Amino acid sequence: MEIVKIDLGERGYDICVGSNLLSNKDLLLGHISNKNVGIITNETVAPLYLEKLKNGLTKSKSIIDIVLKDGEKYKNQESLDFIYETLLKNKYGRDSVLIALGGGVVGDITGYAAATYMRGIDFIQLPTTLLSQVDSSVGGKTGINHVLGKNMIGAFYQPKLVVIDVDCLQSLPETELSAGLAEVIKYGLIRDVAFFEWLEKNMDCLLRKNSDCLIKAIMRSCKNKAQVVAEDEFETAKGIRATLNLGHTFGHAIETALGYGKWLHGQAVAAGMVMASNMSMLMGFIDDKDFNRIKKIIDSAGLPINPPDISQEQFLDLMASDKKNKDGKISLILLKEVGKAFQTEEYDMKFLEKTLNTKIF
Amino acid sequence: MEIVKIDLGERGYDICVGSNLLSNKDLLLGHISNKNVGIITNETVAPLYLEKLKNGLTKSKSIIDIVLKDGEKYKNQESLDFIYETLLKNKYGRDSVLIALGGGVVGDITGYAAATYMRGIDFIQLPTTLLSQVDSSVGGKTGINHVLGKNMIGAFYQPKLVVIDVDCLQSLPETELSAGLAEVIKYGLIRDVAFFEWLEKNMDCLLRKNSDCLIKAIMRSCKNKAQVVAEDEFETAKGIRATLNLGHTFGHAIETALGYGKWLHGQAVAAGMVMASNMSMLMGFIDDKDFNRIKKIIDSAGLPINPPDISQEQFLDLMASDKKNKDGKISLILLKEVGKAFQTEEYDMKFLEKTLNTKIF
Repeated sequence: MEIVKIDLGERGYDICVGSNLLSNKDLLLGHISNKNVGIITNETVAPLYLEKLKNGLTKSKSIIDIVLKDGEKYKNQESLDFIYETLLKNKYGRDSVLIALGGGVVGDITGYAAATYMRGIDFIQLPTTLLSQVDSSVGGKTGINHVLGKNMIGAFYQPKLVVIDVDCLQSLPETELSAGLAEVIKYGLIRDVAFFEWLEKNMDCLLRKNSDCLIKAIMRSCKNKAQVVAEDEFETAKGIRATLNLGHTFGHAIETALGYGKWLHGQAVAAGMVMASNMSMLMGFIDDKDFNRIKKIIDSAGLPINPPDISQEQFLDLMASDKKNKDGKISLILLKEVGKAFQTEEYDMKFLEKTLNTKIF
Repeated sequence: MEIVKIDLGERGYDICVGSNLLSNKDLLLGHISNKNVGIITNETVAPLYLEKLKNGLTKSKSIIDIVLKDGEKYKNQESLDFIYETLLKNKYGRDSVLIALGGGVVGDITGYAAATYMRGIDFIQLPTTLLSQVDSSVGGKTGINHVLGKNMIGAFYQPKLVVIDVDCLQSLPETELSAGLAEVIKYGLIRDVAFFEWLEKNMDCLLRKNSDCLIKAIMRSCKNKAQVVAEDEFETAKGIRATLNLGHTFGHAIETALGYGKWLHGQAVAAGMVMASNMSMLMGFIDDKDFNRIKKIIDSAGLPINPPDISQEQFLDLMASDKKNKDGKISLILLKEVGKAFQTEEYDMKFLEKTLNTKIF
């Protein structure tokens, strides 16, 4: 088992990465011993891992399962209310602990429930998808969607522990593995060219779900994200944490335009990263050789390189309501080079418009 | 103008206390200049102070008013949704600022909206009731009520500034002034015997709404609370911040039993403080002379010294669901002496039962 230490002072925690961790009784013991535990999961994950997890929680005071429907569209107020109500009806107090067993949706909503139930209780993440393992397990972003926008309601709130069992990925559909790889590739693109080059060589190994390859990619992704987050926990410093959003402003617009859940988040981000790279090329930051490498690795991971059919007008309108914008200007993350990203609101609109209208081949 | 500095490191802020502050243009300037401002208030306060406040916000980028219905029963998810929706429809971003103009309900819900809108935006409190001036303006407790319990959903989130204009108290109904005095008396009882004695002498001056008396009582209350909160911002250390809840476990049960809004919060806390004092006397901590002083000052402030008619069974059931409980035991704040409170879950139930069944004369 490998450990990534997340250095956030009194809010710091460990990420444990390895095989066969879900049934490891000792790992969670210190956090759940003699406590009321609420396991939040979904209808897809529950039959696969819930019993396995519960078998290891023998030292808890009580356990309740809260099984949500599976999908981004259930990351909403209604599911959150269901969690609150279940905890309240079971008279769970401030010394209770929530465990998120599932992907990003389960992790985000569980973290937000923990952040806001009785003004904050402990929670532990057991992410079961590659995307949630490399993305939402670091950073403390929790929240739900609003009808008027994705992730509009939320809080920064850190877990007490994250346990990543790569064995869970064996049951993950290929498209979801690819979606996770979009975020993995992102870390290479924004700040780690050596990792990007490693990914170019090892994409097949990852797609074959080789445990060692997966553990390496997850560790390196979490470490990259941890370094960024430690510098800027609350996303306030100009341009530091924001670089993690490469492809996301385009990607969120895609997800909103299609309706949540039509494309996977990682697929939307992948197309968004190609768009951001294309705009970076149009503005003269990267050359066409780099752009082709980016396009190729995203394609080889089984990810889309073009957005779905969305008008320029709708794209701009949706991007304008992104919460990262300042003073009404659309804030974008672009590439200075492969391995170096930056945030900007200062660009000629013609480059953005051209990007929105370019079909990539 | 007087200033109380709230020392919470990077989350620290100032409380400005004085007369004629609402129309002071300079006070808010640094926080709202060139920003989108959302003023959250209610139907009672808006006609009195909203225009006055807005006249001073000439340097903001835009202003929207969000006027809620008046009352504790509107401190709920529906009002919160109305705030989110208004902000989203107006495309307010993360650099927006919310201003709470009103009492505790407006302050709590505004703070919680600020804590959770786009994972946290700035907010400023302009408390217009004595209760909110001495209680919710310090401590960062924000939240809403749930059908199954008061303040069950919330977050710790600090304002950037609190402005207390005592002139607002001139329009405050007598019963609400009294309700605020319950919390003022509480500070004397739990940690400041000199202040308690000052209050015994100056209760008439306060009831006459003398500005100097009010400023003194508010300053001293805020300082007391600030010292407690600085020691235990997130209410985790055993028994420190918890002492601020003297009378509140009884009080919350009263409010829930009657339905929110039947009794004012301060009235319920007042009766709760008499109950806690009675139990402290039954357990031999304070003598009957002290108990009579407490009863007398609460009565002289125009507050109830007895709870409404609630059965012992219902009282215990409601108190058992209080979020401050640990391990299922009802946690109580009791008095060691006048000016010294402590938290405990260790007591003989017969003392609690006797307290619930005692009628005070």
